[in-house]
Amino acid sequence: MSELRRDPITGRWIVLTPEHTRRPSDFIPAPEPPPSSAVCPFCEGHESMAGIELLSWRAEGTSANGPGWQVRVIPNREPILRVEAAHALPGQQVFQTLEGLGAHEVIIETPRHDETLSTMTREKLFCVLWAWRERMRDLKRDGRLRQFVVVKNHGALAGARQQHAHSQLIAMPLVPNVIRHEQASAERYHERTGACVFCDVIQYEQEANRRVIATDDLAISLCPFAPRMPFETWVLPRAHAAAFEDADNTLLTAITDRLQDALKRIDATLLVPAFNVILHTASIGDERSASYHWHLELLPRLQAVGGVELATGTWVNAVPPEEAADALRAAAAV
Amino acid sequence: MSELRRDPITGRWIVLTPEHTRRPSDFIPAPEPPPSSAVCPFCEGHESMAGIELLSWRAEGTSANGPGWQVRVIPNREPILRVEAAHALPGQQVFQTLEGLGAHEVIIETPRHDETLSTMTREKLFCVLWAWRERMRDLKRDGRLRQFVVVKNHGALAGARQQHAHSQLIAMPLVPNVIRHEQASAERYHERTGACVFCDVIQYEQEANRRVIATDDLAISLCPFAPRMPFETWVLPRAHAAAFEDADNTLLTAITDRLQDALKRIDATLLVPAFNVILHTASIGDERSASYHWHLELLPRLQAVGGVELATGTWVNAVPPEEAADALRAAAAV
Repeated sequence: MSELRRDPITGRWIVLTPEHTRRPSDFIPAPEPPPSSAVCPFCEGHESMAGIELLSWRAEGTSANGPGWQVRVIPNREPILRVEAAHALPGQQVFQTLEGLGAHEVIIETPRHDETLSTMTREKLFCVLWAWRERMRDLKRDGRLRQFVVVKNHGALAGARQQHAHSQLIAMPLVPNVIRHEQASAERYHERTGACVFCDVIQYEQEANRRVIATDDLAISLCPFAPRMPFETWVLPRAHAAAFEDADNTLLTAITDRLQDALKRIDATLLVPAFNVILHTASIGDERSASYHWHLELLPRLQAVGGVELATGTWVNAVPPEEAADALRAAAAV
Repeated sequence: MSELRRDPITGRWIVLTPEHTRRPSDFIPAPEPPPSSAVCPFCEGHESMAGIELLSWRAEGTSANGPGWQVRVIPNREPILRVEAAHALPGQQVFQTLEGLGAHEVIIETPRHDETLSTMTREKLFCVLWAWRERMRDLKRDGRLRQFVVVKNHGALAGARQQHAHSQLIAMPLVPNVIRHEQASAERYHERTGACVFCDVIQYEQEANRRVIATDDLAISLCPFAPRMPFETWVLPRAHAAAFEDADNTLLTAITDRLQDALKRIDATLLVPAFNVILHTASIGDERSASYHWHLELLPRLQAVGGVELATGTWVNAVPPEEAADALRAAAAV
């Protein structure tokens, strides 16, 4: 069973997963085996290797756990958190722990080993966002969960261990540090101004038009004012919306279009780099928040995370977001 | 000139360094050239390539900016912050910027290209810590600075761009997020208990003796209770001490011994991994803090930083610190 531990000094939580046994020798780099779709558990036809499906988008007349799907959600085989855990509230002692309660699911984004979010059709990419939303709506029935996060790691530099396109949905029993700080900062802004800082930023960016990549009636993509990494890009709903799982199909379609457009522009500009996609959404129970606004963060992984970033949280970035937005707007999104 | 930018949503600062011109093509991986000490600007004899020295520990009778040194401090050729900047206070508008005021120095830790912190003698390692301290004492005369941090990147996975052993001293005009959160958490603990959380942790760890690697009268090395990364190790003064730059030579010698011992054990256990060393010390002006306690963090870099860590700040770690401490204690520190 995994365990959440709170650092007594910083208040930072970590997840300890000792069941993923790792000996020191497991960390010593070995040459990578050549990729082979023959042994990929995520490919169509290998459903029994991947695991029992929790959800799928599949062709009529096909059966669960067999071929014929477009998107397939399964439990993570090495979950960092599990629904079976008993929930223990943290105490006030120096060393706090919490059983690893939560959920950790894998969204297999395509049946094909050679397809990615930027090469698949928009209808297929919509299915991926649909699967995130439907799983969240289902998991919310468990009243012990506090926070959803979706992450996608593409490429070894971004932390991916499986080459086949997939994302991870994690449901946590607490609001983790980065999201808590983001929410608290947005809440302070709201108290001071009565407005949502995301809405204000979107309005400012549209008017200034220095960092916007593309926009339509419902969704916008832009390079944020203070990006952690070169070519960092965000995709947001234009109208105020705290919780991703409350998005309707019309909004999800608009977000799909902006996300795919941004991914294609990043691929064209940086020659298909490793990247992360992060979904930040309101904590469970805060779906009507006036201060928080869900969004996607796209982080091209072009450089190692160094000591300055780990020591200070201050990212050093050589590419102004205004120049990144210029380059991305000029790139062909085909 | 670099620019500090505050993200309006999270409150997170970044440093934008557009003078380190990077085009998209600069991020496309190229095969690494073979290492060659002939062109290394940090090697003895190449002093004029590296830059004018701010400080050195050198043999009697040798001259500044020539051979004969053991440790040499120079300005960073691509500084992220500079003392020449005019200091502008942040306003209250949505988008805050600050000129890149500060200092960014490189400590060349050895004249030899093939020597590292774990292979050099303890007398030489002491000189490295001495150089950090002396430069801080000098830079403190600039009343505009608020925070020192020392970082060392060893190996490409840890963010190093130069193979030759070196560390970086950065002086910032503000207290960056990670350090501010650590200080605030320690301050809340102090308000609640009247004690320093670091001192309490040290006392608990010594009594429990589950995660201690080694200790002497003045300094201790241990694996922290909630480590971000497998084999994360901290080195701390045992007695309360907020500011690194106030350490005397006796304490620096004890810290040198614990640091070198920990590095040798990590090298033996993980076969000389990439790693970061981070020095966290009190903000300038808070040297007498009762709640903060300076320390070194050693972070072996065995895995890419993935989307979960970036999205949540919750690190996922498969190696319990109790097992890491067992393995490090069992390793030969020779």
